[in-house]
Amino acid sequence: MDPRELIREKREGGTHRPEALSGFIAAYARGELPDYQASAWLMAAFLKGLDDAETQALTRALLESGRRFDWSALGRPSADKHSTGGVGDKISLILAPLVASCGVLVPMVSGRGLGHTGGTLDKLESIPGFRTTLTPDAMRRQLDSLGVVMVGQGPDLAPADGKLYALRDVTATVEYEPFIVSSIVSKKIAEGASAVVYDVKCGNGAFMRGADAARSLARRLVAATRGLGARAAAFITDMSQPLGVAAGNALEVRESVEVLHGRGPTDVRELTLELAARMLELAGAARDRAAARQSAERALDSGAAWERFVAMVRAQGGDAASVERPDGLARAPVVTEVAAPRAGLIAAIDTFGLGELVVSIGGGRRAKEDAIDPRVGLETLRRIGDRVERSEPLARLHLAAADPAAVARAAACFTIGDRAPQKPALVLERVE
Amino acid sequence: MDPRELIREKREGGTHRPEALSGFIAAYARGELPDYQASAWLMAAFLKGLDDAETQALTRALLESGRRFDWSALGRPSADKHSTGGVGDKISLILAPLVASCGVLVPMVSGRGLGHTGGTLDKLESIPGFRTTLTPDAMRRQLDSLGVVMVGQGPDLAPADGKLYALRDVTATVEYEPFIVSSIVSKKIAEGASAVVYDVKCGNGAFMRGADAARSLARRLVAATRGLGARAAAFITDMSQPLGVAAGNALEVRESVEVLHGRGPTDVRELTLELAARMLELAGAARDRAAARQSAERALDSGAAWERFVAMVRAQGGDAASVERPDGLARAPVVTEVAAPRAGLIAAIDTFGLGELVVSIGGGRRAKEDAIDPRVGLETLRRIGDRVERSEPLARLHLAAADPAAVARAAACFTIGDRAPQKPALVLERVE
Repeated sequence: MDPRELIREKREGGTHRPEALSGFIAAYARGELPDYQASAWLMAAFLKGLDDAETQALTRALLESGRRFDWSALGRPSADKHSTGGVGDKISLILAPLVASCGVLVPMVSGRGLGHTGGTLDKLESIPGFRTTLTPDAMRRQLDSLGVVMVGQGPDLAPADGKLYALRDVTATVEYEPFIVSSIVSKKIAEGASAVVYDVKCGNGAFMRGADAARSLARRLVAATRGLGARAAAFITDMSQPLGVAAGNALEVRESVEVLHGRGPTDVRELTLELAARMLELAGAARDRAAARQSAERALDSGAAWERFVAMVRAQGGDAASVERPDGLARAPVVTEVAAPRAGLIAAIDTFGLGELVVSIGGGRRAKEDAIDPRVGLETLRRIGDRVERSEPLARLHLAAADPAAVARAAACFTIGDRAPQKPALVLERVE
Repeated sequence: MDPRELIREKREGGTHRPEALSGFIAAYARGELPDYQASAWLMAAFLKGLDDAETQALTRALLESGRRFDWSALGRPSADKHSTGGVGDKISLILAPLVASCGVLVPMVSGRGLGHTGGTLDKLESIPGFRTTLTPDAMRRQLDSLGVVMVGQGPDLAPADGKLYALRDVTATVEYEPFIVSSIVSKKIAEGASAVVYDVKCGNGAFMRGADAARSLARRLVAATRGLGARAAAFITDMSQPLGVAAGNALEVRESVEVLHGRGPTDVRELTLELAARMLELAGAARDRAAARQSAERALDSGAAWERFVAMVRAQGGDAASVERPDGLARAPVVTEVAAPRAGLIAAIDTFGLGELVVSIGGGRRAKEDAIDPRVGLETLRRIGDRVERSEPLARLHLAAADPAAVARAAACFTIGDRAPQKPALVLERVE
């Protein structure tokens, strides 16, 4: 098919035959179709829409542009989780070794942070020596021995996605749901997970601020994943305040270690257990939801998840002592408390603002090439509905150097009122 | 302004500030903005629309990408005509010398034929030796001495238009009115015409088949031209049958010579006079419409227009004898009549079909690099409403070799009925 015909078809609001769309994207991936035709199509699709079948054809074409791992020879089920990103979301660090310790392979491919949300790879790399690049053979060996790897996207996983994402970034076609879905799902399927649980964040610290957008994305993620032969489910979870206390790379690793020891913030523990249970259930490693939840709790409370985490850190070249000793990770030189300007009840938290603040003090990236200071970050000490007295700490900032402006910005992210607000539920919805 | 912001603005249905849009197009013209960002914007503009002010900013940016001729030092008014293209439209060949002979400069820049419509340059080049490329100095000298030049678009006239058109061609964004308008108007203004009359063709042989589309295009052409400081008017004229008898390059030159001698088909003569009168009036070379019409008729009937035509042919290197002698132009070796399959009244003519037939026998181009046989073409001998007896000729084909299939195709373009149809008016509407 002449690429112009396909572009015209979408321009006129038509629906592509799956093979025609796959052929177009495959030609682009091979470098046989120029950027300017791909970008005209991207804009037409953005404005005229892609239906589920088209989204699936696009996802399949991205997937088929590279290698697709298959771990079935290892004789165990596999599962993974993907979060759409939020502030303080360190769940993967706890979840992956936890689920592996329950007998399910977790071949987790993660990304780096960009903008106000953190990235799992950045957090892991605050552990000295931790390598997030493994050869396919090393991945296979580690999955076989430990059941878990946590790595970055190699150049051979869905390379067309990287190419198309770069084009979307410069042509104002990033924020379209079917594009987002195809990008996420193609990578999850390529890494060889046979069951995927999606954690779609919703609220003022998430990309999807409203429930409708989150629900629609969750539904599409599940449909596209199933369309490519994997089992899938989604949670819509709250991001109207940071998840847990810590936001910032080394601080989040430290909090994850706490949770892996059966302690730590309740919301982090609870969400980890819910997601773990759903992964175990989907992977067929538990009889029902209650049994899956019980397995997950046992793995956390028995120390099995923690042991698996330490083994993974060691296997991937990380300094295990840095997570085993109470203060093994680097700490920021300046720690400042953010005092409440008045007494009252926390009515709202500008979660996006806090995420941006972490970026601005060096804990995140504005551009891909920015360096990160793993030591810096934020601890959120009061949550929505909590009572605070005047001058009591709302938060604690970990800084490379004294920064009164950052303290003022942090304070401004908390709205203190007089009436008790409704505390947000942690899991807002399940999409099956 | 970040180009992504401009693309996003249009994607969201916003309206650009004129300077922002001009800056975007100017950057593209200078090669500082990549094709893929231009094409994403083209598609967003195609689907979300450009208003009159944006169309004008685009036109101005195309214009300012190259040189703009200014003939005011020659001390006479200037005018030009642009037709949107049809079958048998040889008006320019008669009109340009005619208007020049009335004292108005005609610096006409024309194009080549592509698809079912012919091109003025191709017609002129069927005169042996005729050069359609002149240096700016040669143009100025000839305008000063003869008042008329007929040339192709040099590389320095609105070069951004050529670049943008090539991109539109491969990204399915050709058929959008503001793009068409900016492309036409930028070139007319660049050639230095201070008054432009547009002949917007309407009917089954035109690009605009319906009256609404033709009216809208005519209105936009006039508005964009005025917006750039030139006077403008438009005619919407019939293209539900070929204009005149001849379609095909040398045949059309021959018919033009007939009209320049005060003979030839009535419709060609009449439309030429109407357009000429409007040009003279707009250029301020006549007191009112009646006086302008009288001047034009006098120029045709006195032989002044014809003399100016011959002088122009000679000045541009053409063999004047080939138009002065009755059979000076090359003739096709095979001439075949197309017989009516039945008696009756001509109810309709598939004008697009006849135009495509001329292309298929070698008289036009499918692709830019195709060669043209100037000898071949078609004579339409019966018009809508004419009576024909069985086996009488409907048309005459001029062919490079016998071609029974072409004869059958030509016959199939005529619908013969029993009732007298309404004869179409030549000038359907005037847009002032």
